[in-house]
Order: sequence, then C-alpha cells, then structure tokens
Amino acid sequence: MDPLKLHNDAIVIDALQCSDFNRELFEEALRGGVTAINCSAVLWENFNGGIDYVTMWKRLIRDNQDLVRPIHSVADIHAAKREGKLGIIIGWQNTSPLEDRLDYIEIFKDLGVGIMQLTYNTQNYSGSGYLEPHDSGLSGFGQEVIAEMNRVGVLCDLSHVGEKTAADAIAYSVKPCAITHCLPRALKDVPRNKSDELFKLCAQKGGVIGTSLFAPGLAAGNDANVASVIDALEHTLDLVGEDHVAFGTDFSLNRPRPGPWLLWANKDKGTARKLTEFGSVTISKPEGIRRIDEFANLTREMTARNWSAGRIVKVLGGNWLRLLEDVWG
Amino acid sequence: MDPLKLHNDAIVIDALQCSDFNRELFEEALRGGVTAINCSAVLWENFNGGIDYVTMWKRLIRDNQDLVRPIHSVADIHAAKREGKLGIIIGWQNTSPLEDRLDYIEIFKDLGVGIMQLTYNTQNYSGSGYLEPHDSGLSGFGQEVIAEMNRVGVLCDLSHVGEKTAADAIAYSVKPCAITHCLPRALKDVPRNKSDELFKLCAQKGGVIGTSLFAPGLAAGNDANVASVIDALEHTLDLVGEDHVAFGTDFSLNRPRPGPWLLWANKDKGTARKLTEFGSVTISKPEGIRRIDEFANLTREMTARNWSAGRIVKVLGGNWLRLLEDVWG
Repeated sequence: MDPLKLHNDAIVIDALQCSDFNRELFEEALRGGVTAINCSAVLWENFNGGIDYVTMWKRLIRDNQDLVRPIHSVADIHAAKREGKLGIIIGWQNTSPLEDRLDYIEIFKDLGVGIMQLTYNTQNYSGSGYLEPHDSGLSGFGQEVIAEMNRVGVLCDLSHVGEKTAADAIAYSVKPCAITHCLPRALKDVPRNKSDELFKLCAQKGGVIGTSLFAPGLAAGNDANVASVIDALEHTLDLVGEDHVAFGTDFSLNRPRPGPWLLWANKDKGTARKLTEFGSVTISKPEGIRRIDEFANLTREMTARNWSAGRIVKVLGGNWLRLLEDVWG
Repeated sequence: MDPLKLHNDAIVIDALQCSDFNRELFEEALRGGVTAINCSAVLWENFNGGIDYVTMWKRLIRDNQDLVRPIHSVADIHAAKREGKLGIIIGWQNTSPLEDRLDYIEIFKDLGVGIMQLTYNTQNYSGSGYLEPHDSGLSGFGQEVIAEMNRVGVLCDLSHVGEKTAADAIAYSVKPCAITHCLPRALKDVPRNKSDELFKLCAQKGGVIGTSLFAPGLAAGNDANVASVIDALEHTLDLVGEDHVAFGTDFSLNRPRPGPWLLWANKDKGTARKLTEFGSVTISKPEGIRRIDEFANLTREMTARNWSAGRIVKVLGGNWLRLLEDVWG
C-alpha cells in the first residue's frame, strides 16, 4: 500500500485548528493533502466578535477563492476534494458569542458556523470548562443550547469542556457530539486530557474523538513524535472502535508563543486571571508533524502498522463525514 | 375580464408594509390574494436591533409555517404562489443596523434581508432623508454601501431618502433601485412625495416605483378612495411606462396611531426631536383599500379602466419580480 497515494486520494479532515490563516497556510494545507479544516479561533468573543470572525473569514475566502471554499455541508467537502481546494468550516471554541440568546444559534448557523464548543476552559451560561474548579454540569440554559444546536444542525464540541458538563451534554443531546481535539488521560494524566469513560460515552452515542498533537497531553511531552500520536489514537481506537476516532491537530500556526493572541487566549474571558502557563511556554508539536504540510506522515505511520486502507480512510476523514452528515444533514 | 380571477391568478407583491404581523394578519393577506410582502419595520435599530428583527421573523415564520414562508429568491415567490402561502421578504427602512461596517451588508443578506432603504427620513452615514433640511447627496461611505449592496444582491430602496441622495444613488448604483412606497409630488406637493424627475431617473435605470396608500400624499387626503390611488399610479405610469410601476401599500396594521411605535418612528433616531405630526394624527387609508384583504379592489379599479390583463399583472407583481430577479439573481 502506497501511503502517499492513499493519503492523497482520501478525504482528510482536520477537526480543529486555531491558526492565523493566510494564503501561505492555505497552500501549505493543500500540500499536506488536507481537504477541510474546522477553523476555530473564537475563544472569548461576544456577539459582535462572533460576527467579526465570520466577516474575517468571508473576506479571507473571497480573497483566496482559487485555493479555498466555504463548507456548509458534507456535499461541500466532497466538492472541495473534487476541486482540489481547501474547505473552510467556521467553528468556535466557546459559545460566548451567543451571549444570553438562544436565537443567535440559528443566526450563526445561517452564517456558516457549523461547529461550536459548548464552553472554553471555564464556566459560561451553559456549563463548565475543564479548568473550572467546580463543574456543576450542564445548566438549564445549556440544555436549551444543546436542543437548539440539535434543531438547527450545529455540531457540539466538548474538547475543552469539563468532564461532568461533557457527560451531561452527551446524555442530553439527541445528536452525537464530538471531542474534536483531545488526548487520552489514560496515557498522560493531565487536566486537559479526557477519561476513557468520557470517550466511551461520546462514541456510544455516535460521536467521534479527534486525536490532537498537543505535546503536553502526550506521554512524551515535547519529545513526542508521529508514533506517539498514533499510539494515543490507537489507545482510543482500541477503546471505542475504528468508527469513532480521527484527527484534530490543534495547530496554532502563525500564533507566536509567547505572543499577544495566546496570552489573551490563556486568560479567563481574555482579560481576567491567567489560567495556565500554556500561553507563554514553548510547546513543540511532535517530531514529523510540526507543520500541516507533514500530515501524510500520520498516514505513513498508520500504514506502517499494517492498518487496513478502509480503517485509515475512516480515521483521516470518513468518520467526520459520517458525523457531520448526521448533525448537519 | 373577471377582476377577481385575474387578481387571484396573479402574483401580487406588496413592496412595503410596517404592520405588526401576527397569524390573523397573515390570514388576512392571504384572503387579499397577496403572494409576498416586503416586511420592513426596521427604522432606527442598531446592529443588534437588526439581528433581533431577523430572529423575530424566524420565530414568527416558524410558528406559522402552514401560512407563510421566507423569501430569499424569486423562485421562493413562485413557490409561495404555488403553495398558497404568504411570502415574507425581510426588509429595512434604514441602514442603521449596519452601523459603520460595510461587511455587515453581506451578514444581513445571508440572514435574509433582501431590501434596504438607504436612509430613513434624516441623515445617516450614507446620505440624507427627505426631512433633513440640507441634503448633501450620497456620501463616500454611501457609495461604498451601494456598491456592496450591488455585489451581494440587496435591493436599494429610496422611498424616504432625500431627492438629491436618491438621484445620486440611482446614478451610482450599477443595479436598478426601487422607490417601494411613494406618491407623485405632481399631484400633491408635500415633502414625502417625490418628483416626476426622480421617478424618471429611477425607471430609466430599470427601477420600479411602488404607489403607496399614504393618504397625506394623495390629492384627496383622508377623503381618498381606490380611484385616487389608481389616479396616482396612472400618473406615474404615463410618465415612466407600465414596466416600472407597482404597489407598496405602506400598511401599518396593528400599530395604534397615536401609539408608542409610531411615536418612536416619528422621532429622529427614535428618541430625539419629533420630525412630523404623522405619529399622532389620524390618517385613514383610502376608502375601499383600508385593510390588506381589500387588495383586489385595486385590481377591480384597474380592470374598470379597461387596462389589459398583461399590464395589470405587471403592476400587481410582475415588475417587482423582474427587478428582484435582476438585483438578487
């Protein structure tokens, strides 16, 4: 099996990046054989900030329409593959732009926001983040948010959400949820990683868990390599099966670390207390997958482990396609 | 020619109402044989108010989906006719919800706002209204607003716009503009009416002039009847031809006069100085066309004048269809 041919023929979906995109990054992603990316850099924005994020993307897509196209449906992802373009899914890592209005979920869905993480690191109207000391679970408003996401077709992401809130959300949601970018706590016990139990709950309901490249969540930390990433993915795959695992790189390319955006990201609401040291310390991506144009190295590692082509195609994008069709369709 | 059959077979478009709609009004409009209405009650709202207007309509349409449907395209208007439903075009009478951001035009177009009046009564970033003492014409920002409306497919309405700003807008716009609800100054010299010259400029560029039912703009004032309305329309038709005239009733049903909404409407920005007495005085619609379920009486009057069926069908809706196809299509 030629891994590069397999990779280039497959629909490859990166379920989360918060990179600061530009033309060069679009070209790099295309060189990496990537078909679509959930571009999810909204963290603390209010309603107007959420709108500004949409307009920023509209402009960026329009100015680079020879390279990229917007993704509103699974059919759009297939079209991106056919056209050799990079598909842009607009996503959020927080529901803060909804402010206190359920109606705004449909507003943003209409504008192309297809994936919303329920909370980012701390507590909001809907529930807790993974850094909140006390996670009281999904709030009453959070239940209404989930129901409305289900109704209008927004994928609920639980990556930075607290464990109890995440479990409640999976149980409450009629549609499957995603954990777009996360690593198993079983291999490295840090707060940002998630338990096997939560991964199983997510998968049992039809959801998908995206393996991330976040070095502090891998057993080897900054010494990790491509094999470490596939080890983590394999752990989750053994737990939930090949229909429920995938990738969400968490690339934050063009965001200097330390730098203003990451320092803002790392404060509660962007301006309050500092939540972790992640905004200022050096964090390497695993060797061999430090840039998005190295994506095929993940496929090389999977073929080296003698995985079937069918399994690899599911992990690269097929599982996200199925989930998005279910939630958006 | 059976006027009622002609009326009921035709696509009938009311190019402006600011009624406070509910289920009973939808039923009444359907009894009146109306196919689609430009529902345009945004007057002074800021960005959030513009969003709230969209969500109000989404809710109202969803709660009455057996009676109404949203209109985003000319195909949707034909579908409304086929289904026997009332089509809702979301419109604005002011560009105030754009605040200072050109990008927001596309945001609201995506959300279904298909018609925007450039200014409402007074001056804004784009130009002057008809009640502004000095009309300096279309501003530089206003030029950019028009260009962006052209690009994303929003019909520019000039009914309450000052004469110079309106003439500038028609000249600057690549696409035809509309004067959705207005009466000829030639028959009654009041500021709210518009000159023959402006009507001609609008039509020469492919635009359409909607005859309104606003009694203070008709020669007979509160004593006007259906014939007075068709007299006004006929004046404009003689001036610009049958391809450029239509109806925009300006019904404000369920808005008590005097009452809080109309008093707000009648102050600059909603809270500043009172602009006219219209908010508090009694204004009757012309006899025979006081409610939207009497719409067929206009068709009766046109057939009584031996107009051809082809002309009547254009005036009832065909001209709006052509214009909307050109601007939205």
